[in-house]
Amino acid sequence: MQLQFLGTSAGVPTRRRNVTALAVLCSQGKGWFLIDCGEGTQHQVLQTSLSLNQLQGICITHMHGDHCYGLPGLLSSAAMNGRKAPLTIIAPKGIQQWIEATALYSEFNLGYELSFIEVNSQLHHRVGAVTIEAAKLSHRVPSHAYSFTEKTADFKLDVEKLIRDGVPRGPLWGQISKGISVAVNDRQISAQDYLIANHEAEKIVVGGDNDTPSLLGEICHGCQVLVHEATYTEDVALKVGSDVGHSYARLVAEFAQQAQIANLVLTHFSPRYQDHLKAAHCIDDIRHEAQQFYKGNLFLARDFATFDLDKQGQLSLMSRDL
Amino acid sequence: MQLQFLGTSAGVPTRRRNVTALAVLCSQGKGWFLIDCGEGTQHQVLQTSLSLNQLQGICITHMHGDHCYGLPGLLSSAAMNGRKAPLTIIAPKGIQQWIEATALYSEFNLGYELSFIEVNSQLHHRVGAVTIEAAKLSHRVPSHAYSFTEKTADFKLDVEKLIRDGVPRGPLWGQISKGISVAVNDRQISAQDYLIANHEAEKIVVGGDNDTPSLLGEICHGCQVLVHEATYTEDVALKVGSDVGHSYARLVAEFAQQAQIANLVLTHFSPRYQDHLKAAHCIDDIRHEAQQFYKGNLFLARDFATFDLDKQGQLSLMSRDL
Repeated sequence: MQLQFLGTSAGVPTRRRNVTALAVLCSQGKGWFLIDCGEGTQHQVLQTSLSLNQLQGICITHMHGDHCYGLPGLLSSAAMNGRKAPLTIIAPKGIQQWIEATALYSEFNLGYELSFIEVNSQLHHRVGAVTIEAAKLSHRVPSHAYSFTEKTADFKLDVEKLIRDGVPRGPLWGQISKGISVAVNDRQISAQDYLIANHEAEKIVVGGDNDTPSLLGEICHGCQVLVHEATYTEDVALKVGSDVGHSYARLVAEFAQQAQIANLVLTHFSPRYQDHLKAAHCIDDIRHEAQQFYKGNLFLARDFATFDLDKQGQLSLMSRDL
Repeated sequence: MQLQFLGTSAGVPTRRRNVTALAVLCSQGKGWFLIDCGEGTQHQVLQTSLSLNQLQGICITHMHGDHCYGLPGLLSSAAMNGRKAPLTIIAPKGIQQWIEATALYSEFNLGYELSFIEVNSQLHHRVGAVTIEAAKLSHRVPSHAYSFTEKTADFKLDVEKLIRDGVPRGPLWGQISKGISVAVNDRQISAQDYLIANHEAEKIVVGGDNDTPSLLGEICHGCQVLVHEATYTEDVALKVGSDVGHSYARLVAEFAQQAQIANLVLTHFSPRYQDHLKAAHCIDDIRHEAQQFYKGNLFLARDFATFDLDKQGQLSLMSRDL
């Protein structure tokens, strides 16, 4: 899978960073999922090679405006660009009510079917090879993390089992290797039983706003990547107070280290943190704090940064579209 | 007054043009008014020298998403940036209901007072030296035009009247010229009665989506500038059909010519019209069509284009912030 960040600023947009949105791209095909949709997400999409026609689903972590105010415009523009395929939105209940109110007042008619699934920690939603699950987080309003698990399409033959079960070497093995079930002496052989995945399923967890990273313990089981907010550094978080319901770099880093997550991407930075190194508060302060407590593969997101998760579970920065 | 265009595309944003929003800047002070607020308007404002703290009011022409989906984000960001001054929104009734629904679901608390005035053709709203009025237009949903009339602050003494009324030449005339009322032989002299405006009040009319420019006849009386949508050229408008409720270049140009409006700014172009001259449909096609029917001072808006209306009623392009 790949990740493309469409917005990495907390609360308000800045000149360089939009409010939150993230594309999770499937390995197989051109499909992608959108996690959160702050205002201006459709504008960001225009700057990428992503197509609203290929969008497989939208997941909203929570109902704060900087995570959802881009939804009505994105849904309308998809319709105006000719989308006909149904679209599913997994979100807190209020999102459905708000979108319905918005459609009513602004008289939008999408021309494609919109369906809503209310997020809760029992979520288990499959789209093609991808399974989406959710975990409850802690924030000022109900907030969730989503996991995206993509089944591998990369198999090898279980040669030992084939020999043991007397499946004759030759064209039959070829068919089984392509996933085609075959008959041997009137016995039906299911290809699936003789294929071994060449690598584990890819699993990415994307957190919503959250002040308690340990709540991600269960959903992060078996994941290679965690994307989580680090709105502040510890010193600023202490000044701001705990009412805001956000995490700071150290908190997330300690969790990811303890949970042995191989790749950690921090995002959702308070606008007080600027990109240039001479600023009073600098994005690099967040990086330095996280590095002290996390020894894995650490990244700080930027708008349009694209990351690729390879089959060995290693995440790497590919490019920025801009 | 000045105009700064923040969005000039119809329906959907493009890479170069955002959906509709326009700033009308007062001549006196730093105040400005926002007319329409498509998604991403707050992002556009970030690229200009406009401040949300100086915003004197918002006028929404109609409830289609490309004219109002930026409101919740802009209002929230103004609050997060510390705005405390009350803000008035003049809009169709549905806007108030939608903003209240949005505030409820997304739990935004602005920290400043928001008040709504329902637009109708009796509107007469004064803010400082500016008076805002409205006229009903014709579109798929209720749509209005707004006029902004700014009283002049540029006066000269009515010397003839001063002499006739026996006001002695000297320091008294100086005080009257500054607008200070004085006493002459126990008689109270109101400065206002002895001052003549050096030029007419500045008046700008901004239309909403509208397929019948002639509806602007009355509100355009005495205006120097009309800003109006020209979504299409005539050939495309005929193909698209009249259901869309939009104007094309010729229609607006003929009206402005007949109404003898000195300056006409066309905006809200269908995304099919591109900026480069070799495109199948080019923004310049709209200009050429309008020029055939309008002999005044014609402009086609671009995002961030800023226009200045001088005291002689002449509009001129100043600069683009980007």
